[in-house]
Amino acid sequence: MAGKIKTRDRILQTALALFNEEGEAQVSTVDIAVVMEISPGNLYYHFRGKETIIEALFDDFEEELRQVLSAPIQHPLAIEDNWIFVYIVFEEINDFRFFYYSLSSILERCPDLRPRMTRLLKLKKETVTAVLTQLEKVGLLKFGNGERDTLASRLAAHITFWLQYRDLTSPSKEGRDIINDGVYTTMMQIAPYIIDDKDAYLSLLGDYFQAQQ
Amino acid sequence: MAGKIKTRDRILQTALALFNEEGEAQVSTVDIAVVMEISPGNLYYHFRGKETIIEALFDDFEEELRQVLSAPIQHPLAIEDNWIFVYIVFEEINDFRFFYYSLSSILERCPDLRPRMTRLLKLKKETVTAVLTQLEKVGLLKFGNGERDTLASRLAAHITFWLQYRDLTSPSKEGRDIINDGVYTTMMQIAPYIIDDKDAYLSLLGDYFQAQQ
Repeated sequence: MAGKIKTRDRILQTALALFNEEGEAQVSTVDIAVVMEISPGNLYYHFRGKETIIEALFDDFEEELRQVLSAPIQHPLAIEDNWIFVYIVFEEINDFRFFYYSLSSILERCPDLRPRMTRLLKLKKETVTAVLTQLEKVGLLKFGNGERDTLASRLAAHITFWLQYRDLTSPSKEGRDIINDGVYTTMMQIAPYIIDDKDAYLSLLGDYFQAQQ
Repeated sequence: MAGKIKTRDRILQTALALFNEEGEAQVSTVDIAVVMEISPGNLYYHFRGKETIIEALFDDFEEELRQVLSAPIQHPLAIEDNWIFVYIVFEEINDFRFFYYSLSSILERCPDLRPRMTRLLKLKKETVTAVLTQLEKVGLLKFGNGERDTLASRLAAHITFWLQYRDLTSPSKEGRDIINDGVYTTMMQIAPYIIDDKDAYLSLLGDYFQAQQ
């Protein structure tokens, strides 16, 4: 039984690496079996087709991202931890990036994942709202009528569609740059709501992220 | 020959309506032929498969959207026309909405469309940059270091991924509401850069769009 569990996990790890690296559409179950040096029959014994592998990977992704996103809802973050938190969210998404690159294609073939992706998007917005509310409470940010809600929706959408956007605009860049730029763009969208010394913040932000290039 | 041209156009119109209405993945060339009451062989005579129909529809979409987006680059818009311009962009995209709902899926099957979609996204950003620069020049908006460029990218991404975002968050809403909300969210993202009386603008915006619901 221990052997079976191990093979199942190895299939998932291999599939995730190949999907992320080559693009999910380019990888068949036979490709996965070949890379693992197991027979397609052995793979089929564990997963009856590529869609069941994708769904099992989504179980893992959903659990991990839920844990990350729930943290600031349960306990407010220290101010200096917000920046790191945004990095962690982008890194988590990058670990399962094939879901985001092939979003509409995967949801067409795995319709059961659609309501779960919707719930994750809602949780992203709740998390951003919790963080922004906390920053407003401590007097760092100020929002006019409807602005906090719009910014929370926009940042949830930014996190969700960033990889597709980058794939269309600068497909050749490295993973590390894509994450850095995603975090920078997040911080830039929060900037206009800063109460004191926005220009100092913008200048710090610009310098920091230029140094990462 | 006139008859042939007519059938070709009718195929494109029918395909566009069905793709937008039912979702592109749900519609086969046989479905299109059945709705048109022509034989699949007749349809095949004009288009050798669904991908060639999709590519012909993209030709039309690209030409129309390029025309719309080029206008403010060639001649600055009057201030009061910006709002209407944003509506026109969202309406144009809504007319060919299946491209945006099924973006990754279509680009997997029609890889020739990828660089063309990239160029459209770049043109969206150039257009937004032209509009924002003009609004800055007449003293309505003010941007700090890097803010205009970030906002232009974010609005280009907003226009591109709005339909997918709405599909995940509130799939049941009507086309008119989706366009209204897309325009509202665009105007809200510009609000924080307004120099004078941002609160009056936000309040006007909120009232106007609530009245559209």
